[in-house]
Amino acid sequence: MTACPPIDAERLWDDIMALGAITEPERPYTRRSFSPLYDEGRAWLTERMREAGLVTHIDAAGNLIGRREGKFASNRTILVGSHSDSVPSGGRFDGMAGVIGGIAIARALDDHGVTLDHPLEVIDFLAEEPNEFGLSCIGSRGVTGCLTAEHLALSNRHNETLAAALARVGGDPARVRSARRDDIAAAFELHIEQGPVLEAEGIDIGIVTAIAGITRLEIEFEGTAGHAGTTPMQLRRDPLIAAARVVGWVHAHALELSARGQGHFVATVGVIEALPGATNVIPKTARILIDARSEDRRLLEEFRSALDAESRGAAQAARVERSKLNCLSDNLPAACDPRLREVLGRCATLLGYSSRAMASGAGHDMAFISQVAPAAMIFIPCKGGRSHTPEEWAGAGAVAAGTRVILEAILRIDAPTASPAAGSTASPAPGKDA
Amino acid sequence: MTACPPIDAERLWDDIMALGAITEPERPYTRRSFSPLYDEGRAWLTERMREAGLVTHIDAAGNLIGRREGKFASNRTILVGSHSDSVPSGGRFDGMAGVIGGIAIARALDDHGVTLDHPLEVIDFLAEEPNEFGLSCIGSRGVTGCLTAEHLALSNRHNETLAAALARVGGDPARVRSARRDDIAAAFELHIEQGPVLEAEGIDIGIVTAIAGITRLEIEFEGTAGHAGTTPMQLRRDPLIAAARVVGWVHAHALELSARGQGHFVATVGVIEALPGATNVIPKTARILIDARSEDRRLLEEFRSALDAESRGAAQAARVERSKLNCLSDNLPAACDPRLREVLGRCATLLGYSSRAMASGAGHDMAFISQVAPAAMIFIPCKGGRSHTPEEWAGAGAVAAGTRVILEAILRIDAPTASPAAGSTASPAPGKDA
Repeated sequence: MTACPPIDAERLWDDIMALGAITEPERPYTRRSFSPLYDEGRAWLTERMREAGLVTHIDAAGNLIGRREGKFASNRTILVGSHSDSVPSGGRFDGMAGVIGGIAIARALDDHGVTLDHPLEVIDFLAEEPNEFGLSCIGSRGVTGCLTAEHLALSNRHNETLAAALARVGGDPARVRSARRDDIAAAFELHIEQGPVLEAEGIDIGIVTAIAGITRLEIEFEGTAGHAGTTPMQLRRDPLIAAARVVGWVHAHALELSARGQGHFVATVGVIEALPGATNVIPKTARILIDARSEDRRLLEEFRSALDAESRGAAQAARVERSKLNCLSDNLPAACDPRLREVLGRCATLLGYSSRAMASGAGHDMAFISQVAPAAMIFIPCKGGRSHTPEEWAGAGAVAAGTRVILEAILRIDAPTASPAAGSTASPAPGKDA
Repeated sequence: MTACPPIDAERLWDDIMALGAITEPERPYTRRSFSPLYDEGRAWLTERMREAGLVTHIDAAGNLIGRREGKFASNRTILVGSHSDSVPSGGRFDGMAGVIGGIAIARALDDHGVTLDHPLEVIDFLAEEPNEFGLSCIGSRGVTGCLTAEHLALSNRHNETLAAALARVGGDPARVRSARRDDIAAAFELHIEQGPVLEAEGIDIGIVTAIAGITRLEIEFEGTAGHAGTTPMQLRRDPLIAAARVVGWVHAHALELSARGQGHFVATVGVIEALPGATNVIPKTARILIDARSEDRRLLEEFRSALDAESRGAAQAARVERSKLNCLSDNLPAACDPRLREVLGRCATLLGYSSRAMASGAGHDMAFISQVAPAAMIFIPCKGGRSHTPEEWAGAGAVAAGTRVILEAILRIDAPTASPAAGSTASPAPGKDA
C-alpha cells in the first residue's frame, strides 16, 4: 500500500468555513440547489478541485465531478463525496464536509505525488436535500440511472421543469441516462451524524451499517364538524380525538420496537392538522403524517400493519371514519458494503480513533449509490446531534479524523495486497471488529 | 291584555329568504359586518322596518333600531331582535331569523292597529359574529356601555380602525357611551338552536336558561426539535406527545363533566399546531386551543384546575416543558331573566307548542344585554343542528312559532294584569312549568 499522505487539516477546515460563507446573507446558512448561490458555491468548488489536480466536469445528471486518473486505465473508479446544497437556514457541514473532505483527499494525494492504481473521483451530488421540485437525491438517482421522464417533468413554483433546471446547472436532461455508472469500484461518503449518539458516547467514528428505509404515511380521520358550544359531548364525532390517540400510540410503539434489539427504529408525527381549524368549531377532519424508519424492513412492515389496526380502532372509538391511510413514499433500507465497512473500521483503529457500527436514520446519496456499487459511509460526531440548523457544528478535529479514515481506506481498497508503507502512522490492522 | 294579532308567517318566511339572497354570489351565504353587502342588507331591513311602521335610526354603537312609541311615554322600552351579519359561507337563519321575526311582530301590531303600553324597538345588533376586528357582539357591547377606547382602536387588515368602520356604518365612535341603555323593560331574542337537541327530541321551542360562559385557553408545550431519522426514541423530547395526550383528556373529562347533571358542559380542541411542521423533523413546539363552555361557572373552574394538573403531568411524562397556559378569554355565564323565561314557557304552552328549558352553548347578544336589562331567548329547532354553513335550515313553521311565542310574551309583559282578550287562540296559562 502507498504511504498515507497527511491531510492538511487546517486547509480542510478553512475550506468548509469558506464554502459556508457562500450563503444568503440574511438567513445563514442557505445555499439551495438550483439557486444562483448554489452555482456560486459550485464555481468555488470547481476552483478548489482544479487546485487539487482534479479534472472537472458536470455529468448529465448535474453532478459536479473532479477526476484524477489512476495507473491502470482498466481499473474501475473509486468515488468519494457528498453534496453541497443546503436546506433553508441549514448548516455548514451536512453534505459540505463530505465534498470538502473528498477534495482534501485528492489534494493530499496530489501534494505528495501519489498516483493510485484506480482513478479517483470527487463528487458533489446534485440536490440531495429537499428542494423546490420535491425530489431529493437528484444527482445520486442519476448515477443509478433511475431519473425518469416523470421526474424530469416535475416543476417548481415558477413552472420551470426539473429538466430545464438540470440543463441550467450544466446537466443534460436528454442524455440523463448516460449518468448511470457501472464502473465504480467503491464509493465513500463522510457525513456528520445528525444525531446525538457519537457525541453522547464519546466515539470518534460511526461506521454506517445501513441507511434506514423510510416509510411515510398519511392518515386522515373524518368526523362531523359542529359548533363547539352547542353540540353535546355524547353526540360528537370528533376526528381529532382519533388522531391524538394515534400520535401517542406511534410514539409508544416506536419506543417498543426500537428497544427490541433488531436495530434502528424510529417513528415520528411531525405534521398534524385539524380542519377547519377554528377555536369554536369541532374539527371535520384531522390528518397526521408519520415518518417511520428502520434498517430492518421487517420492523417497518410490522409497524405499518399495527398502525393500520390501531388507526381503525381509534376511528371506531371516536365514531369517525378513517378516511385515508396513504403511503406517501416507501424506500427500502440500503445496506452498506460489508467489505468496505470492515476496511473502514480497521482503518479507524489503525489511526487511533474509536468507532462503532451504527445505522443511518437519515437518507443519503449513498442509499442510491449502493444500488450500483459497493458503497459505505462514515459518521463524525456533531454538537448536540443538531443538523439542518445554523447551529449545526462539527469540530475541526472530527472532520479531519473522518477524512483521514476514508483516505486510509481508499489506499487499502486501491492496493489491498500491498503492505503498509513506512511513514504511515497506522499500526497493523487488528481485525474486523476493531 | 291586548288580543294577540296573527303573525303573517308567509311574509316572515319570504323576508328571511329575501335577506338571505343579499349574499356574495360566489359563496352563499356571506354578508359580513362592515362589508358593502352588509350595508345593502341593512338598507333593505330599514325599508322593511319603515313599512312595518317603525321609525328607524342607527345608534352610536352602530345598531340599527326601528322604534314604535307606546301609550305611556314614561314606560321603559321592550326590545326584540338579533343580528343580520353572517360568518363567511354561513346560513340564512343565525341572527336573521330573530331580526326578521322582530319586524314581523311590529308589522302584526301595526297591521292590527295595536298600540302597546310600552315603546317597542326592533334591533339589528351590529357585528355579532367574529369579524375582521376580532371582536364579536360589538353592537350589544355598545348597549351595555362597555365598548372601550381599546376596542375602538382595533384595526382590520386594511389598517382601518373599528372607530372608523363604526362611523362608516352610521355609528358615532366619539359618543359610543351614549349607546348604553338603562331604559329597557325586557329584551327578547329568537334564534335557531345551532345544536341538535330540539330536533332530536321533537320539541318546538327551547326556553334558554342561560348563555354558557366561554373560557378559551391556549396550551403550548416546548421540547427539542430533532431529525426524525437520527434521534433515537429514548432521547426524544417531543412536545406533540404531551399535546396529543391533553387532546384526549379534554374530550374524556368533558364527557364526564357533562354527564354530572350540573347543566351544559362542553370542551373542544379545535386548533392544534406542531412546529416547525415538517414530516422529517421532531416538533419543537406543540400548541392547542381549548374552548370550554358551561352554564355553571363552578364546572368551568373545576375543568381549568384539572386541565392545569393534567397538562403539567403530560409535559412531565413527555419530558418537555409546558411553556404556556394562557387564558385567551373568559366570559361568565349569563342567566336569562327568570320572569321572562316563565312568561315565554307559559306562552309556548298557551299557543300549543312543546317546549323545554335548555342552556345556550353558543354566545349571543343577549349575554351582554342581560347586564343592563331583563333578557331572554328562545330557540327553534334547526336541521341536523347545523349552523354557520350554507346548509343551515329552519322550517317556516318553526320560525313562525318562535315569533308567535315572543309576540305573545311581549303582550303579557306589556300589560301583565290584563286578562286574555277574546279572539286569542291562547288557552289559560297552566303555570310556571308549562
